[in-house]
Amino acid sequence: MAERDRLATVAVVGVGLIGRSIAFALRAQGIRVLLSDSNRRAVDDAVRRGAGERLADTTSPADLSVIAVPPGAVPSTLRHAQSRRMAPVYTDVSGVKVAPVRAARALGCDLTAFVPGHPIAEETAPAHAARPDLFRGRGWVLCPQEDTRSDAVTLVRRLIELCGAIPVLMEADTHDRIAALISHVPYLVASALAGSLADAPPEVLWLGSAAGPDVTGPAAGDPAVGAEILSQNATWVSNVLSDIAANLVDVCAALQLAGAGDDSFLGDVAALLHRGHTGRRRLAGAERPHDEDGSEE
Amino acid sequence: MAERDRLATVAVVGVGLIGRSIAFALRAQGIRVLLSDSNRRAVDDAVRRGAGERLADTTSPADLSVIAVPPGAVPSTLRHAQSRRMAPVYTDVSGVKVAPVRAARALGCDLTAFVPGHPIAEETAPAHAARPDLFRGRGWVLCPQEDTRSDAVTLVRRLIELCGAIPVLMEADTHDRIAALISHVPYLVASALAGSLADAPPEVLWLGSAAGPDVTGPAAGDPAVGAEILSQNATWVSNVLSDIAANLVDVCAALQLAGAGDDSFLGDVAALLHRGHTGRRRLAGAERPHDEDGSEE
Repeated sequence: MAERDRLATVAVVGVGLIGRSIAFALRAQGIRVLLSDSNRRAVDDAVRRGAGERLADTTSPADLSVIAVPPGAVPSTLRHAQSRRMAPVYTDVSGVKVAPVRAARALGCDLTAFVPGHPIAEETAPAHAARPDLFRGRGWVLCPQEDTRSDAVTLVRRLIELCGAIPVLMEADTHDRIAALISHVPYLVASALAGSLADAPPEVLWLGSAAGPDVTGPAAGDPAVGAEILSQNATWVSNVLSDIAANLVDVCAALQLAGAGDDSFLGDVAALLHRGHTGRRRLAGAERPHDEDGSEE
Repeated sequence: MAERDRLATVAVVGVGLIGRSIAFALRAQGIRVLLSDSNRRAVDDAVRRGAGERLADTTSPADLSVIAVPPGAVPSTLRHAQSRRMAPVYTDVSGVKVAPVRAARALGCDLTAFVPGHPIAEETAPAHAARPDLFRGRGWVLCPQEDTRSDAVTLVRRLIELCGAIPVLMEADTHDRIAALISHVPYLVASALAGSLADAPPEVLWLGSAAGPDVTGPAAGDPAVGAEILSQNATWVSNVLSDIAANLVDVCAALQLAGAGDDSFLGDVAALLHRGHTGRRRLAGAERPHDEDGSEE
């Protein structure tokens, strides 16, 4: 391995679920991990749980710095890390890619050394649910820009490999469209559903908690972080959501008519259920495609 | 126990997930179970799996008959069972109550001997997932009508007790409103979401399958049965869904504006997420209310 591909020390900025899970995965591979967070107590907690050691101002540079903060905080955090020369290469893990990269560029960050990334994992669990195998066998999207150095990409691919994940290269805009479809819109819809139970009496909630596969799980996420992510990916989220909302408005009208004795549009309801059944079956049976690495969707 | 409270033999008509699970629960308590289904092979399979014995034309009457068929088939199935004097008391398990009861009355069924019921359990699993503890600790709604005999209600409460469930008495209309809220609308919304992935390429599905708490589970249900249930509860479903669809249309517009640089309505998005977070927290922590039996919501 060439000297610049070396990954002996990694700095992790942000010790939430994702940052800690990366730290645990790296520690399990014998890699030194330096932890930083705007919340000092969170770092103390992460250190106590064995995620690594505190990053001090006097610590010599790491080989790679992972910016594991919400998307809105990525540009300023990257700028600060680069200004103090935390590492020669940087990546992030946020669920939106276009807006943070654009903002980082506007802020004067060195984007040649920054590989925008997004490990696809359940992100609604609390930090103490962090575990080293969170990314194992899962996709980890990388969106290198035109000016990203290839050695930086190589180093981040090594990080992904050490976490047991599979790198998937794509354009940032493609990532954001897919993230809207598989994550951001489901989050919004789950929140709307869960919100309909916000004022429900205890008996209804008790019955509801046993009524079938849970669809409100994503609504457990931190609403402040969620609002930030949605606003950063606003255009794709509204594009994907508009179709779904329109479908729901249509079946709502069809059912209103049916309730009044006019079954003319019940076929639309059946069609939505059949299409949903197809999507669900495909999702439940989804496997890693054979063209597994670096493919554009 | 008085002679008419005796529950030694139970007929189960319909050997899907719910019918079989009731059969298993009763068999575990030493009760004789007689099985019937419009699909003869399904009965053979259920018998082979130990759910009971085949109900023959010559079998003497059971103490209770459980009509475990989809709501649209309840009236005719009940009528047929009563005409052949299958048992002195009947109950059903379907997820809608007002429409089937009304149709059964119109068909000339004896409603004094029929206790409309609905065990609240996950209903999307296939029949072979049946298990005796499916109802344990869960609510089982009963909606006796004005003319329902009290001894019939007593007998069905005994059935519920034998299944380890908790009887919850309420008006049929109240049940249907609650079912729309906790089951039918989530099913429709999950189907709309899953439908957005029906044509997605394999890589997107693979990434999506790891993207967080699954919200598409209910879409796995049989679309034909689902369409029937929704149409039978059309008014309540459209009432509940219209609010949720309107919320989604609103946040969609707010995000479209945000994507164009106008953040004026992002507060609406945050409000929806906060309300969802509240509902999710209440749902996840839901416990059986202290006023546990026979309470009206």
